[in-house]
Amino acid sequence: MSTRKVVVREDVARYANVSPAVVSYVLNKGPKRVRPETEARVLEAIRVLGYRPNAAARALKLQSQEIFGLVLSTGGNALFVELANAIEDAANALGFAVINTNSRESAAREREHLRNLVNRRVDGIMLASVEAQPDISEVARAGVPVLLLDNGGSIESVPSVGADLEAGAYDAVRHLIDHGHERIGMISGPPTDLSDGREAGWSRALAESGLPEGPLVPATPKRFGGYKAAKRLLASGDGLTALFTSCDAQGVGALRAVHEAGLRIPDDIAIVSFDGSTEAEFTWPGLSTMRQPVEQMAEDAVAELLALRDGGRAPTHRTYPTTLQARGSCGCVDKDPLS
Amino acid sequence: MSTRKVVVREDVARYANVSPAVVSYVLNKGPKRVRPETEARVLEAIRVLGYRPNAAARALKLQSQEIFGLVLSTGGNALFVELANAIEDAANALGFAVINTNSRESAAREREHLRNLVNRRVDGIMLASVEAQPDISEVARAGVPVLLLDNGGSIESVPSVGADLEAGAYDAVRHLIDHGHERIGMISGPPTDLSDGREAGWSRALAESGLPEGPLVPATPKRFGGYKAAKRLLASGDGLTALFTSCDAQGVGALRAVHEAGLRIPDDIAIVSFDGSTEAEFTWPGLSTMRQPVEQMAEDAVAELLALRDGGRAPTHRTYPTTLQARGSCGCVDKDPLS
Repeated sequence: MSTRKVVVREDVARYANVSPAVVSYVLNKGPKRVRPETEARVLEAIRVLGYRPNAAARALKLQSQEIFGLVLSTGGNALFVELANAIEDAANALGFAVINTNSRESAAREREHLRNLVNRRVDGIMLASVEAQPDISEVARAGVPVLLLDNGGSIESVPSVGADLEAGAYDAVRHLIDHGHERIGMISGPPTDLSDGREAGWSRALAESGLPEGPLVPATPKRFGGYKAAKRLLASGDGLTALFTSCDAQGVGALRAVHEAGLRIPDDIAIVSFDGSTEAEFTWPGLSTMRQPVEQMAEDAVAELLALRDGGRAPTHRTYPTTLQARGSCGCVDKDPLS
Repeated sequence: MSTRKVVVREDVARYANVSPAVVSYVLNKGPKRVRPETEARVLEAIRVLGYRPNAAARALKLQSQEIFGLVLSTGGNALFVELANAIEDAANALGFAVINTNSRESAAREREHLRNLVNRRVDGIMLASVEAQPDISEVARAGVPVLLLDNGGSIESVPSVGADLEAGAYDAVRHLIDHGHERIGMISGPPTDLSDGREAGWSRALAESGLPEGPLVPATPKRFGGYKAAKRLLASGDGLTALFTSCDAQGVGALRAVHEAGLRIPDDIAIVSFDGSTEAEFTWPGLSTMRQPVEQMAEDAVAELLALRDGGRAPTHRTYPTTLQARGSCGCVDKDPLS
């Protein structure tokens, strides 16, 4: 392949034997009128040369590139993979592209991604932060709208979308209690300054039924984190019969740890997880999980960011209910993925 | 949040009480010299107002936005998730951002993504196509460099990176033969005009050992595709004792189908898959798989695309060997993920 040659307006003008201004008149349908023969010659030149009005020039003119930035805290998380896909779809439908970045659980890397996206003058940033209360002052100062993903509104002035973690966790643990469990442990997210609603929901469900809190082990929201945490919980040997995990990635890791220990699921250890990702459908047994409405959240996030960019709107905090997808891991019938 | 206000050079000039040209001299360190007091005033104005030289204007000047486009054929595939992450990392390290798009197995959607990326004048496109021989003539005409991912060089003039599918599949099937299997089926990718090297490798390994070809079922490269195909293979009841699946997503689906059928893995049905994704580490039993060197492929893809953009280079086709990660599903020792 030879050196890249970008076709510019001047090339089209030369080929069509008109001035560059006439090319612009044809493209912009004005302001001056162009004779039909001349217009046909310009359009032919555009076709032959494969000319495309420069997107960068257009962006400069409109002060917009129609690009959103997406910053996710972790890469190995099933929910985030599906959320990113849904956000791409929702943004593409409105003519926006999405730049994806991944902080790999590092706050420093997250700040770097935010800075780069601001320097690129994206139209808005969706952030699933490593931190409970991320520092977005630099982004705000640059006037780039931000929306927090997977967040319950931890910063008053910054819009957010997130599942109702407390209610979802409560329902998950209630479901395990209904299956007869009395000793229910939890694998939580990494510890932060703010309490995670899932811990509160787990705790409330147990308290309401007069049950003691089982052991709680914090872990990274990844398969490996859930695996290690479950191994610790099983080794502690304190009569645990059920586990609530704060995300499907952890749930998948926990399933593996229980199998390795030679225990049966759900007979010896039952598990309910949180997210409702596709990965949970195909585990053995199927992983019961609280489904987040990912597509709806993605659509709302994109619409909110667009509205913010266009100005004059107070930030909203949207919280979404989750629904139980009961499968084999909690003791329900393990429907096959075809049904 | 109030209406967004972009700070421009003129705002800085007004605040610092200098002409806009002086702001540019300070930012560009020339061409004219600026007195230290004046420079200090301009820098203070930049800091206070949060001014950032407009990225769009810079892109226009450089004819580059330092953005690559990534077009993946499918969203639910474990390999692609890891490849996308690795490509983001490799691109970010060179100061490039990545726009991610997903064709969801639709050739029409893929063409739309390509067209949009060309209109955005990205610096290059990495394409894992839905088709064996994608039509990239429009992209080529626009002068945007393209590289094919997960591809063995199906178009002579377009650079590619991809695993050595034939050799990897051959090694996978040989491994199953070494475990004593004589009736080995395959779940392949969707049928295309070009033969997939994995089929050829499976076929060669069987032929060399004088074994008959087991049944072959094509399927989408997703968990659900592998699940459905494995159900069909198991129902055919022709004495199958082992399966080779063409990607980990299919392997995960196949594991689920074998469990559902009440068969033991690896005792009744052994499985070796292809990709080496993290997901395969945490299944039960662990999914034996041929690992693709994802990070290396991502780095080489980004470097190649950059070299092409900068011109004067013949396209290269890089093929990478895969290595067996033996776990429980083939009959090897099922090492735990901590080891």
